[in-house]
Amino acid sequence: MGHVFPGATVPFGMVQLSPDTDTIPYEMNGKYNPDVYKYCAGYQYDDKTIVGFSHTHFSGTGHSDLGDFLIMPSVGALQLNPGTAADPASGFRSSFSHNNEIAEPGYYKVKLDEGNIMAELTATARVGVHQYTFPASNDAHIILDLMSGIYNYEEKNVWTFVRVENDTTVTGYRQTNGWGRTRTVYFAMVFSKPFKEYGQKNFSSKQVYRGFWGKFNQTKNFPDIAGKQIRMYFNFDTKENEKIGIRFALSSVSTEGAMLNLRTETPKYDFEKIKAAAQSTWNKEFNKVQVDADDETKQNFYTALYHSMLSPVNYMDVDGKYRGLDQNIHTAKVFTNYSTFSLWDTYRALHPLFNLLQPKRNADMVQSMLEHYNQSVLHMLPVWSHYSNDNWCMSGYHSVSVIADAVVKGVYKGDIQKALDACIATATHRSYEGIGEYMDRGYIPAEKNGTAVSSTLEYAFDDWCIAQIAKKAGRNNVYDTFMKRSQNYMHVFDASTGFMRNKKTDGSFVQPFDALSTNGQGFIEGNSWNYSFFVPHQPGSLIKLMGGDAMFTAKLDSLFSMYLPDKYFAENEDITRDGIIGTYVHGNEPAYHVAYLYNWTSSPWKTQERVRMILNHQYHATPDGLGGNDDCGQMSAWYIFSALGFYPVAPGNNDYALGSPAINKATIHLENGKTLLIEARNQSAQNVYVKSVSFNGKSISKPFISYTDLQQGGKLIFEMAGAH
Amino acid sequence: MGHVFPGATVPFGMVQLSPDTDTIPYEMNGKYNPDVYKYCAGYQYDDKTIVGFSHTHFSGTGHSDLGDFLIMPSVGALQLNPGTAADPASGFRSSFSHNNEIAEPGYYKVKLDEGNIMAELTATARVGVHQYTFPASNDAHIILDLMSGIYNYEEKNVWTFVRVENDTTVTGYRQTNGWGRTRTVYFAMVFSKPFKEYGQKNFSSKQVYRGFWGKFNQTKNFPDIAGKQIRMYFNFDTKENEKIGIRFALSSVSTEGAMLNLRTETPKYDFEKIKAAAQSTWNKEFNKVQVDADDETKQNFYTALYHSMLSPVNYMDVDGKYRGLDQNIHTAKVFTNYSTFSLWDTYRALHPLFNLLQPKRNADMVQSMLEHYNQSVLHMLPVWSHYSNDNWCMSGYHSVSVIADAVVKGVYKGDIQKALDACIATATHRSYEGIGEYMDRGYIPAEKNGTAVSSTLEYAFDDWCIAQIAKKAGRNNVYDTFMKRSQNYMHVFDASTGFMRNKKTDGSFVQPFDALSTNGQGFIEGNSWNYSFFVPHQPGSLIKLMGGDAMFTAKLDSLFSMYLPDKYFAENEDITRDGIIGTYVHGNEPAYHVAYLYNWTSSPWKTQERVRMILNHQYHATPDGLGGNDDCGQMSAWYIFSALGFYPVAPGNNDYALGSPAINKATIHLENGKTLLIEARNQSAQNVYVKSVSFNGKSISKPFISYTDLQQGGKLIFEMAGAH
Repeated sequence: MGHVFPGATVPFGMVQLSPDTDTIPYEMNGKYNPDVYKYCAGYQYDDKTIVGFSHTHFSGTGHSDLGDFLIMPSVGALQLNPGTAADPASGFRSSFSHNNEIAEPGYYKVKLDEGNIMAELTATARVGVHQYTFPASNDAHIILDLMSGIYNYEEKNVWTFVRVENDTTVTGYRQTNGWGRTRTVYFAMVFSKPFKEYGQKNFSSKQVYRGFWGKFNQTKNFPDIAGKQIRMYFNFDTKENEKIGIRFALSSVSTEGAMLNLRTETPKYDFEKIKAAAQSTWNKEFNKVQVDADDETKQNFYTALYHSMLSPVNYMDVDGKYRGLDQNIHTAKVFTNYSTFSLWDTYRALHPLFNLLQPKRNADMVQSMLEHYNQSVLHMLPVWSHYSNDNWCMSGYHSVSVIADAVVKGVYKGDIQKALDACIATATHRSYEGIGEYMDRGYIPAEKNGTAVSSTLEYAFDDWCIAQIAKKAGRNNVYDTFMKRSQNYMHVFDASTGFMRNKKTDGSFVQPFDALSTNGQGFIEGNSWNYSFFVPHQPGSLIKLMGGDAMFTAKLDSLFSMYLPDKYFAENEDITRDGIIGTYVHGNEPAYHVAYLYNWTSSPWKTQERVRMILNHQYHATPDGLGGNDDCGQMSAWYIFSALGFYPVAPGNNDYALGSPAINKATIHLENGKTLLIEARNQSAQNVYVKSVSFNGKSISKPFISYTDLQQGGKLIFEMAGAH
Repeated sequence: MGHVFPGATVPFGMVQLSPDTDTIPYEMNGKYNPDVYKYCAGYQYDDKTIVGFSHTHFSGTGHSDLGDFLIMPSVGALQLNPGTAADPASGFRSSFSHNNEIAEPGYYKVKLDEGNIMAELTATARVGVHQYTFPASNDAHIILDLMSGIYNYEEKNVWTFVRVENDTTVTGYRQTNGWGRTRTVYFAMVFSKPFKEYGQKNFSSKQVYRGFWGKFNQTKNFPDIAGKQIRMYFNFDTKENEKIGIRFALSSVSTEGAMLNLRTETPKYDFEKIKAAAQSTWNKEFNKVQVDADDETKQNFYTALYHSMLSPVNYMDVDGKYRGLDQNIHTAKVFTNYSTFSLWDTYRALHPLFNLLQPKRNADMVQSMLEHYNQSVLHMLPVWSHYSNDNWCMSGYHSVSVIADAVVKGVYKGDIQKALDACIATATHRSYEGIGEYMDRGYIPAEKNGTAVSSTLEYAFDDWCIAQIAKKAGRNNVYDTFMKRSQNYMHVFDASTGFMRNKKTDGSFVQPFDALSTNGQGFIEGNSWNYSFFVPHQPGSLIKLMGGDAMFTAKLDSLFSMYLPDKYFAENEDITRDGIIGTYVHGNEPAYHVAYLYNWTSSPWKTQERVRMILNHQYHATPDGLGGNDDCGQMSAWYIFSALGFYPVAPGNNDYALGSPAINKATIHLENGKTLLIEARNQSAQNVYVKSVSFNGKSISKPFISYTDLQQGGKLIFEMAGAH
């Protein structure tokens, strides 16, 4: 349920070429099909068949889209339907075994049993590279399925356009109306060997005007193809063990753009060379953090590091052109444009991690978000954006936190005033999700919005972030306004119960109140127990609100220890039972910072204990190794920070909260050329408590360390112990 | 049934902004709705209501498309359905009266009775300009109907995308799957006054993924709109007689392109100034031919001249960018790119007319066709192309005739070798409409194609055209090959009956033969009686085939005199009873040259008589003034040539056949700066026979004159008489 995929990609690559084990429909009988959720990333480990290999995937999401351009090799009688998992021979899909499957960064290999075909995949940023090793056959096929997709339904396919340019080259595009409402992906596909014939079938049940096109036999060897539901095939004669390769480039701009990407990134078909380059790129990234730890921790760490580089993705052609939110073509002249911003998730730890390990990329991501704002007719920063669209998933306006963190840490070097203007415009968009009410009353009344409490809490944090940018920008009025707004969490705090609660327009709290329920209490993906701790920017004030150190600590203890009754568990989204510790829901975003809140109490050792427990329980380098969706790398980013011994509780703040490192030693090669060495001396499964910490020889008295300090490089040394 | 429209446009303008009197569906209960044919140009004179004003129209076609972006003003309760013609108050449509309607070149005005709104339209090449004079109302609306179209059905609307940029500016695009299979038109719309509110309704019965877009109230004042079936409204308060103006720009490239077109061509809203410019542009064109004639002839002549400049249309942004056949964006650097090539029609007289009156434009049209070829994955020149599509309507590969005529007459100054290559590639595309069979056997066997005879005849003529280019290009082998092919008409001539007939693979003719029927005899839109004269490139040979001068003349006489029985008339397409003279079908393309064939006999006076008869009978400056579809100006071009006294029987040949001028005098200002004066001395309704002709003082003995001669300017003087 991590919703990750095993396919081939390079770090932050647009092409994420991976097997899809099923393509079940988004709807059954006009209703949402809950099973579709399993296939957010196209792959489920328990499945016994593979439908094909498609070029775009989200990593770790809880809603989905993409799965563009599914390719599948086959031999024997041509089949243009995928068939069923129960009877793979009924279609072009194939059974496979995990014994015959290898997944490495930048490389994927699987034997397709049905046709005895070995499939291998690798990629560059914009080109998926396939290699299929066939048996001898005069009836070998490569299917190009232009209908298949993730979260698919017939009306999702808006239009398809394909040109068979010659006997090795195919270009075209696919336009969909899914999570991305108006999405077009262009492609260019080049075979390593000429096909002997080709054809297509249009599966649309809807009339497509044919007119004088009826003059042509469009089903076979006809190069000019368009329609709503199209599958194509290309036929070959193959010798025993003959390899047929495909370079498959994507573009958001045009088929010309896709050809340019293909020619630039893969000037010729050389699978081994491209694979070696992809793996070398990964190793370069991994080597930025050299970790000494026990094997499991090491596996978990690099698995997490891998997952942290699967989104956002590069979203421009090699010449800088990309399709903007306005559907016009823009050119990124001095930055790399990125797409896939799952911001409700990733502002928390993933973008802060990029500020540490990928500051240049993160600055470009901030720039990409600001360009999104420039292109937005709503004049808003992205909420959940992908492929020239915002899908508006989840809540808050957390772009501002990503921007604030990059600004405060000096990573974003662009125009801070403009960035601030974008944040203000977004945070004052009165018609968006109760912002108007929030501005007028300091909270969103329960009557106005189903997630009034969580949005009020998230807005308050985001407003604090905006204030931090305003401070740096020297705009005191803005600072004052947003610092005032940042305290709005107080308006939904009910002192009588000690919980954050849904408040009505008249100021009274909604009855009945159930702090464990996520339904109808004004929260999104979380209950009051988890959300009541969501004041990451002002934990001290929250502790005061909740009755001081002792009461707060006891409450936190309860969160981690009280068993969540099954009826409440069933209400949770995007999480497995294992993803819950007591009532604390790790893997759902509202709680990620919570274990670190003990740092503001007199018991920071409880942070250390809890963090190590979570690291041990919630992450395993196994197919079911994640207790919840990886959420575009957010869950993995939590692991990386926590395993290194610190965490950004409030992105937008320069300080990290210290925890309990799970590694023995880590050498981080910072982008500024400095080296940061982290040592956890005497660390073990038992020795999870921090006796003392020093940075460059100076003892650290409080459990915090600043980003600025770490950027100077040097040694961060934890002395660990078995008791606090 | 001329299928012309009364709206506002400039010569060859992309925007053709005209009232649509109905928008009936292309299909009823899943079947073609024959009534839709009446609405090819959106307007029927007998209709009592107007649905709105849309920006794109074909002039004179027999199939259709377009009708993009229908705009309608209204007052009172908002209605987002057009309502019915029987009860216009049931929707936003309005009744109107021809008494309150004015149509001038570049200007259209009508009073909309329902809301007592005066509507005025004018245009630039790429911008439609609306002016609506409202009564006093606090409930005035302007509807933007993005669903409406010509030849419309629900699935035709593939996608719509709209952004309300601010309180006066709207941008977006509409993508359709109609006659143009993959067609996208972008727009930018600017109101002269801010609207007070706006909204939209999505009429699609199909699911459109909503997801988190449900957060928004998308129906009102929400600027980010997309879907399959959308109508929008913009509300205003109006004072008595307040004018609200709209500039509405089109682009094939992007909304940015549309904005660029809008800002460049109409930097500000000034209806009267834009109207004056449009009318001045028309007058400049009309003044190229100054005609002295009786009133009716003059009206007919300038009506025809007007109709001859409604297509092809300018199809690029002001910066030269346009969407090519490959759906990529191309830039026309040194020519104007044109679209809408109805070549089965227009190669005959319209493009030859352009060689006389618009050589620069015609050279660019040839270049546009060659660019189409460059972009064609089928490697074919256009057959019937519009808006980055080929719709493949009708038969032949008549692009080659347009190219040949422009090459032979020295009008096309580009690379002749490349042009020839494009012609050869098209004419040897074996899988297209029997070309392979035609190449192998010299004719298309009846079993292989439903229009085997007419295609064989048309290919033979086209091949002769290609030979003419080859001659000029100095490629003798090509010349020989295609001159040989140009005689293929002989293979379908049946000497025993004297008619062109459907021949089977075994060489025998299909039985039963019916020379009057257009059904199942191997012809498209014509019967053997009409098509048997289709050897425009070698009339002398045809006369010989048909038994010599006397027999041929008698046969031609019969064509014009024998009454076509009703049962055969019913088989005809695109023609009214009045469009038929005897069995000669004027207004359907195969016959246009036929009246001129007497010039090759001993009785050229019969050409003179027939031509004048056709001029009198088939053209009137009245709502029902055309006996058949104007076919993108082809029928009108016949009028212009014939009224001036000559006609291009075989485009690709440098010579015109002389007829009988219907004007008294015409002064043609040639583009080369020369002036050509045509005089028909003593011409009258009775004096239709040509006693003698002289050019620049030299008597002309044969009834032909060359293009080259006429290009020198001077005087072409016909002495007319009442008897031959």
